[in-house]
Order: sequence, then C-alpha cells, then structure tokens
Amino acid sequence: MKRCRLVLSGSGGQGVITAAIILAETAVLHENLHAVQSQAYGPEARGGATRSDVIISSEPINFPKVYQPNVLVCLTQQAYNKFFSIVRPGGMLITDPRFVKVESKANAVQKELPMFETVMDKIGKPIVFNICMLGALIPLIELIKAESVRKVLKNRIPSGFLDLNYQAFDFGLALGEAARN
Amino acid sequence: MKRCRLVLSGSGGQGVITAAIILAETAVLHENLHAVQSQAYGPEARGGATRSDVIISSEPINFPKVYQPNVLVCLTQQAYNKFFSIVRPGGMLITDPRFVKVESKANAVQKELPMFETVMDKIGKPIVFNICMLGALIPLIELIKAESVRKVLKNRIPSGFLDLNYQAFDFGLALGEAARN
Repeated sequence: MKRCRLVLSGSGGQGVITAAIILAETAVLHENLHAVQSQAYGPEARGGATRSDVIISSEPINFPKVYQPNVLVCLTQQAYNKFFSIVRPGGMLITDPRFVKVESKANAVQKELPMFETVMDKIGKPIVFNICMLGALIPLIELIKAESVRKVLKNRIPSGFLDLNYQAFDFGLALGEAARN
Repeated sequence: MKRCRLVLSGSGGQGVITAAIILAETAVLHENLHAVQSQAYGPEARGGATRSDVIISSEPINFPKVYQPNVLVCLTQQAYNKFFSIVRPGGMLITDPRFVKVESKANAVQKELPMFETVMDKIGKPIVFNICMLGALIPLIELIKAESVRKVLKNRIPSGFLDLNYQAFDFGLALGEAARN
C-alpha cells in the first residue's frame, strides 16, 4: 500500500488550501489513487494559522483526519510553532527560511527550501508561492508525476496566468529535487 | 448545541468547494463557531461528481466526515442521482431545476431553487453561480449572518469582482428567504 499524509500550514493568504486541493485532485484524476482533503478550523483559525490536510493512498481512506503527517509544511513562524511537534517520527518537515526560523529539533528530516525567495527573484509575483511549494513537494512525496499536476493546473487556471503558474511549479520541482539528497 | 452538516455536490467547474470553504471560514472567523470542511475523492471523482462536506457546530467537531447531511445541495443530475439518498430523514434537499430533474422522493424537504437562471438573467455571469447558491443557504441553515459572509467575500475576492459576487450573493439570499416557507 502506498500512503502519504500531509499537513500544509501557513497564513490565510498564502494559498495552502488551494495547493492541497490541487494535490488531492491530481492524485485522484491522474494517478488512480484515493485522496481526502480537509480543513479543520477551530478558535486558532481566528489567530491566523491556516492548516490544510491531505491524505493520498492507493487504498480507500476511512478516516480523513491527519494526526501525524509524514510530510509537514510550515510557511509561517506561527504555523511552525503550532504544528512542528505533530510531524510523524522519521517524517519530513519543510519550511521556508523567509518566514520560519527553525528553532526546535523535531524528530524528522528538516528541509529548509527558499521557495519564496526563488519566486520573488525569478518571477516577482508572490501569488504563485503556493504553486512553487506544490512543485517542491512532488519529488519529495514520490507519489505523483509532475506532468499530472500540470494537467490539473491547465484545467483550473485561466490561460493568461498558466505560464506564470507553470514557471513557479518548475522552480519548486527543482528545489524539491535538490532537497532529496 | 447548534450543529449543521452539509454536503454540497455538483460538477468540477461549479465552484462547490470554494462555496464550502467560504461557509466554513465564515462560521469560524465571524460567528464564533467550529467548522470542518473536506473533500473525499474516490474513483467517482473521475466521472465528474464533486462533493464537498461542511460541518458547522457550536462545539468542537470530533469526526469530520458527513454521512447524513441535514442539508444536501445537488447542482447536477449526476450528483443528485448519486447523493440524494444520503440526506438525513427530515433534512433538506436543495436542487437547481436548470440542472436537476427531481425524480425520487427523498425523505426530506425538497427545495428547487432557480439559482442558475437568476444569475444568468440578472447578472449574466455563470462564474458567480456558486456564490448565489451560498447566499441561498444562509436563510435556510440559520447559523450564519449574511453580513459575516460578506466580510469573508471582501477579504477573498479581488476588489474588481466584489460587486458581482455581492450581487449574486444577494440574489441567493432572496431565493433562500422565499424558500423558507
């Protein structure tokens, strides 16, 4: 059985929910996998920390909530402080050094990926930060082909913005590839 | 305890996931409620039926999956055929007559709301169909104030498109109000 449990966390405007939905849709539509994607909001949402969960599996998924993600992404310090401890022992914790100072030793492989800096230097549009993050995940989770994500992007994104998103996705792929070692 | 379990269903491009996310965010950010919002994708997603679940509650929510919604919205015939039977006995089944011919007697209050026709006649932009549907839900679920949804819309939608969305939302509100009796 193949299975990956992800938690993507950050602040409201960073697009983590959209990235999670695209990832789940790709798994189902083009990889013959099952997926569940959810947002659980509690009082902490009023403080600004957004959390989006994705489970991808070769088998049907009975319980949709993620307690211990294999892969945890934190895109703000607040999200990091709140969630770093839930990462599965031996899992992977991905942060962006523009927003997160990694202070604690989580029991996980820690990857600091300069996704925001890359997007701003190469493209100059922060709006595709989430798509760069999505790209970085692909080589690291190893369940989904980049080409499959591009198909979903093509279907969802207005054609005038598609190239921008493809670029951000490709820069993310490169960051993820480089971080595999 | 106040609680509402909703399933919004339709096809990929109709924006039911976005409507579900806006509803859940509104409950949490402006109504002091808890909310969970999820998409469970299985093989049927490849056939085109999208389903998005929302639970809104005054208490923390332990189990995020909806088995029997109090409120079921079906925006395509395919979604209706697939999901009409899950509505909670005594619950409410909302369809749009432009897309759904109500064939079976579900054990629920059935409301046929001409949301698509209203959007096309009054605004002419199908893209805000989902926001009209969101508006129609507000008087029917009675947990969330219209003004709270407008705050979330204002925060999420680019200012050039906000009036369009407010209009669609208000037409939906009127349809929902009229359907309460």
